[in-house]
Amino acid sequence: MKSRAAVAFAPGKPLEIVEIDLAPPKAGEVLIRITHTGVCHTDAFTLSGEDPEGVFPAVLGHEGAGIVVEVGQGVTSVKPGDHVIPLYTAECGQCLFCKSGKTNLCVAVRATQGKGLMPDGTTRFSYNGEPVYHYMGCSTFSEYTVVAEVSLARINPQANHEQVCLLGCGVTTGIGAVHNTAKVQAGDSVAVFGLGGIGLAVIQGARQAKAGRIFAIDTNPSKFDLARQFGATDCINPADHDKPIQQVIVEMTTWGVDHTFECIGNVNVMRAALECAHRGWGQSVIIGVAGAGQEISTRPFQLVTGRRWLGSAFGGVKGRSQLPGMVEDAMKGEIELAPFVTHTMGLDQINEAFDLMHQGKSIRSVVHF
Amino acid sequence: MKSRAAVAFAPGKPLEIVEIDLAPPKAGEVLIRITHTGVCHTDAFTLSGEDPEGVFPAVLGHEGAGIVVEVGQGVTSVKPGDHVIPLYTAECGQCLFCKSGKTNLCVAVRATQGKGLMPDGTTRFSYNGEPVYHYMGCSTFSEYTVVAEVSLARINPQANHEQVCLLGCGVTTGIGAVHNTAKVQAGDSVAVFGLGGIGLAVIQGARQAKAGRIFAIDTNPSKFDLARQFGATDCINPADHDKPIQQVIVEMTTWGVDHTFECIGNVNVMRAALECAHRGWGQSVIIGVAGAGQEISTRPFQLVTGRRWLGSAFGGVKGRSQLPGMVEDAMKGEIELAPFVTHTMGLDQINEAFDLMHQGKSIRSVVHF
Repeated sequence: MKSRAAVAFAPGKPLEIVEIDLAPPKAGEVLIRITHTGVCHTDAFTLSGEDPEGVFPAVLGHEGAGIVVEVGQGVTSVKPGDHVIPLYTAECGQCLFCKSGKTNLCVAVRATQGKGLMPDGTTRFSYNGEPVYHYMGCSTFSEYTVVAEVSLARINPQANHEQVCLLGCGVTTGIGAVHNTAKVQAGDSVAVFGLGGIGLAVIQGARQAKAGRIFAIDTNPSKFDLARQFGATDCINPADHDKPIQQVIVEMTTWGVDHTFECIGNVNVMRAALECAHRGWGQSVIIGVAGAGQEISTRPFQLVTGRRWLGSAFGGVKGRSQLPGMVEDAMKGEIELAPFVTHTMGLDQINEAFDLMHQGKSIRSVVHF
Repeated sequence: MKSRAAVAFAPGKPLEIVEIDLAPPKAGEVLIRITHTGVCHTDAFTLSGEDPEGVFPAVLGHEGAGIVVEVGQGVTSVKPGDHVIPLYTAECGQCLFCKSGKTNLCVAVRATQGKGLMPDGTTRFSYNGEPVYHYMGCSTFSEYTVVAEVSLARINPQANHEQVCLLGCGVTTGIGAVHNTAKVQAGDSVAVFGLGGIGLAVIQGARQAKAGRIFAIDTNPSKFDLARQFGATDCINPADHDKPIQQVIVEMTTWGVDHTFECIGNVNVMRAALECAHRGWGQSVIIGVAGAGQEISTRPFQLVTGRRWLGSAFGGVKGRSQLPGMVEDAMKGEIELAPFVTHTMGLDQINEAFDLMHQGKSIRSVVHF
């Protein structure tokens, strides 16, 4: 079949809106019609060419919502008409990681997903007879896409897709990191570095957890209003201070902050976030994705005096088990999604979504098919 | 009064055995007769001049056992004749850290201790009328020493001081890191980098925790027999492999090791220890003390894929609350201390203890007064 898609033909070039060919779902696969997709920094990161796993041409996009059109052989957990969110972190329920009870990092489709392929090692997308690669197991920048059954969360069909598509990545990542990775408790202090979609979701998660003081840090003060609306108590622009930001925050708190979150992907900010974590027990969670080959560093004394350095992927959330409940939370208003959607547009305007993001003007642009 | 002591007059020089002057204990302080003291790498580290907090002249030593001789005003928790272990990590019970229930890193005497001073900002030691500094709040290389009351654990008077003095640092640090910091569970895999006193104690702690596979890693294979005796299942000499040691261990385990411990103080080994921690949930605990200004580094991807980087000081053990119980465990044979004591000697021979340590010939030398 044919599908309208925004294709990344080469790194550093705008996406091109073309009609691609899509093969039907094989065993264990599902054909979905994407209704809405967010545009995330990770898409921009891969498009830039910085992502060492990036392959081209590819259909990017990993933060979507849609409806099942057709299922391949053996698929039992979803049927045509089901509303779904594609998962870039699968949940097979069978692998060492799924069974551990300790992590969401399922390996069922990991090896092929990282190469832009379906689990059988081939692609369902093609253009002019040449293969077009998948992306993060989702490829939501195509009106129709094929994903593995283990990479699909079935959600309440009453949910607002324009909003809940954001649970496919950014909002879940931020909220999940608070609850599953850091396990923030009532009264704890929190610092959030970077007030994009993920950082704002961290603030929302911190407020859900009844955190005490919530520091919001960004060099773009236009983000502070929304940060405050979500629950930030102290907004700090590092450019307003002569000292390193970690020193500023330690001085404001005496011993540092209970939980810090890096939501940018900047290795220097990762260091700052660790170093303003509380002596004795503070922990710092890396959420942002750094450029290829970049490294974090600090003095080991920071850890020996009780700080802990962690990371979080998809907020530690097991997509098929937990995402449906988060959709329900959003429908009840316990997760606020509307303020994240600052722009909407048709697929033809998708490159504008990247422009708005790079200019720091949007939190999330959502594309309607 | 006079006290026989091994004094570090200058960095990089052997200790000199001299008679120093000792002022009586002030309020909140206790005069102790040290009966035995271990010699630890940290003493050698400070003596080398690498320790940025090192001050000279000083009475080093922080792994001792002794008997209370006299108490200063207001001291209530110990009395003359009590058997004690001095604590370089105090436990005041009153500060933010003691009350948190999350850490052993009491700050009651921290600021002055780091400068080689008693809590009132002065020294009790002098030589030829000039002040001699304290060390880590203990200074166990003097037959008589003065320590803060909050820096003393009262122990069973039947305990064998030649052995339990090692609970003043190395053995407690290693065993404590397993139980308090990493919280190793039955069946977990463990890797220990560096088979000195601390590394061997980690192995012993891992066996207590009923760990499964226990990897022992050292470039000195003469340590392997004792490591196996304590419970190591796999002894590895990195020099026997062409690949980085983290790669060797990941290949032996598929996904890495549940808990890894760095017991050397080498920042490159700290990286290796992190990078062979299990994908998804593995954690790496830094115990070794690195040289001034040295930094650890890794790719943030290591953390985002579920590894956690921690540190441990004194094994997370609260000295006054927990050390007496560990002494009881040692008396019951649940902690084996005898194999650690590979050499004993009088105070006059203390420089030999440093030589044996540097040559890798001793686990612990214990000095008898």
